[in-house]
Amino acid sequence: MPEFMDVHTNMVGVTPEALHEAHQGDLAIQGEEGVDFKQAWADPVTGHVFCLSEAPSADAVRRIHERAGHAADEVHEITVTA
Amino acid sequence: MPEFMDVHTNMVGVTPEALHEAHQGDLAIQGEEGVDFKQAWADPVTGHVFCLSEAPSADAVRRIHERAGHAADEVHEITVTA
Repeated sequence: MPEFMDVHTNMVGVTPEALHEAHQGDLAIQGEEGVDFKQAWADPVTGHVFCLSEAPSADAVRRIHERAGHAADEVHEITVTA
Repeated sequence: MPEFMDVHTNMVGVTPEALHEAHQGDLAIQGEEGVDFKQAWADPVTGHVFCLSEAPSADAVRRIHERAGHAADEVHEITVTA
């Protein structure tokens, strides 16, 4: 299954509770697109959030985030790791 | 220990061998700044590379990447996860 890192760049001040709620919103519907969100890392100061997932396509990742109310600004397909 | 996600945005076409070599370059000197690079994820198409680390500071992460020959474009301190 392809792996993706998506980036949100406009979440300044995100709290643990808000990130948890957003992540749960993704998890609640991700199965409808075959997406599996693994983890989310946030920097409330710069407003950047990074989400690692396995999914059939970048568009599937985009659709889940959009439907959950927090569209991703970037979606990168991870094909090389170290 | 604080956690960081740094981003390189100019690595279009990065190969598994090149990412491995770059990562090994970091690992070889990271102890001098107390940095522990955990993992690197690359998208050779967009040229984005994401590196997760534990480190005393963002500047310590920046210095290791700079000395290894691949300065980071962004360093985000991760204080919230989900």
